[in-house]
Amino acid sequence: MSAPGKLVGVGVGPGDPELITLKAVRVLEQADVELALTFPVTTELPRDEAPYCDAVRAFYDAAARDVASYLDDGRLVAVVCEGDPLFYGSYMHLHVRLADRFRTEVVAGVSGMSGCWSAVGTPMAQGDDVFSVLPGTLAQHELERRLNETDAVVVIKLGRNLPKVRRALERTGRLARAVYVERGTMTGERAIPLAAKPDDCAPYFAMVLVPGWEGRP
Amino acid sequence: MSAPGKLVGVGVGPGDPELITLKAVRVLEQADVELALTFPVTTELPRDEAPYCDAVRAFYDAAARDVASYLDDGRLVAVVCEGDPLFYGSYMHLHVRLADRFRTEVVAGVSGMSGCWSAVGTPMAQGDDVFSVLPGTLAQHELERRLNETDAVVVIKLGRNLPKVRRALERTGRLARAVYVERGTMTGERAIPLAAKPDDCAPYFAMVLVPGWEGRP
Repeated sequence: MSAPGKLVGVGVGPGDPELITLKAVRVLEQADVELALTFPVTTELPRDEAPYCDAVRAFYDAAARDVASYLDDGRLVAVVCEGDPLFYGSYMHLHVRLADRFRTEVVAGVSGMSGCWSAVGTPMAQGDDVFSVLPGTLAQHELERRLNETDAVVVIKLGRNLPKVRRALERTGRLARAVYVERGTMTGERAIPLAAKPDDCAPYFAMVLVPGWEGRP
Repeated sequence: MSAPGKLVGVGVGPGDPELITLKAVRVLEQADVELALTFPVTTELPRDEAPYCDAVRAFYDAAARDVASYLDDGRLVAVVCEGDPLFYGSYMHLHVRLADRFRTEVVAGVSGMSGCWSAVGTPMAQGDDVFSVLPGTLAQHELERRLNETDAVVVIKLGRNLPKVRRALERTGRLARAVYVERGTMTGERAIPLAAKPDDCAPYFAMVLVPGWEGRP
């Protein structure tokens, strides 16, 4: 009987294939099994209701069972994760289902948002800035309240939330500094001041950067 | 007369030399000049008073003049940045002083905090979580207020602020989930549940992770 295997969540960075780390390259070369986890995106089920949660849970339970069968056979299983595995990544759903039974390791990656602000050359946060990531799914008044008390903000999960996000930025006086980025560091990258973006079309994975760092020396 | 040079801020990651990206390695190989920017840390001058700001400003002005002389000579100047250059990094002080006169590029890096939560294997934020970075320099009531309304938090700039940070976590019921990490991904890395840490000694660059993601499917 073989020794149990090991699960490694491998962050491969924000999109540009050169933004992968040396460690990620090495682990992917050494892995016996390399998997990518495709999150079951659905726009048909309301996200805060039981059928959605049940569907997502069943998906991850099944994925964990598949991975566990490789681990039981003693394999080194690498799960490829866009961005950084433990930061808004699907990998962590596998991790928490398996970390109590198998050895695990996580290879940090450059996050999608780091890729975006670096591509745009926007200094995001400095010194004593408070930095926040706000999902565009928040209600407009919640977005406004939080925009009012945070120095630097990244708004994620845009898609159909962009008109609401734009209104919240406008009402808090932060629209002028906001930068819209889609496909950051990837082919087809597009960045534009949000105030200059003529429409409210945005993919779900686009983001809005609101740099902090007002009182720099 | 040569064409003007180019300034590249190169993120080299959180400490582990394998967590550098392929792009950073390439740029450092191609660079004519490779510089590291040593931020003038001082504990003698109060940070919110004019002498401190003047000293910091003078330091960066001088550094920018030095770099500009290389750029005027047409050199490719790489500035090595720990972590991610535009996220709480010193590089951005150079960037804003030179970006209007010279070509610039920023190579995103794995941030220090990504390195920490990956080393610990702590899933940080997921789904609709609000994520915040709070400087330990905030007043205790401000820390408490913000801890109460954020799902996932990283507290940076610990040092002498750790006792205050610990009290704020305790009073908001979040001490039990808090993890203290120092020298994340580096030699001498140390991670411990903050509640189990017997003393309040912490280097300035240590951090406390408070994972979000309570209601996962």
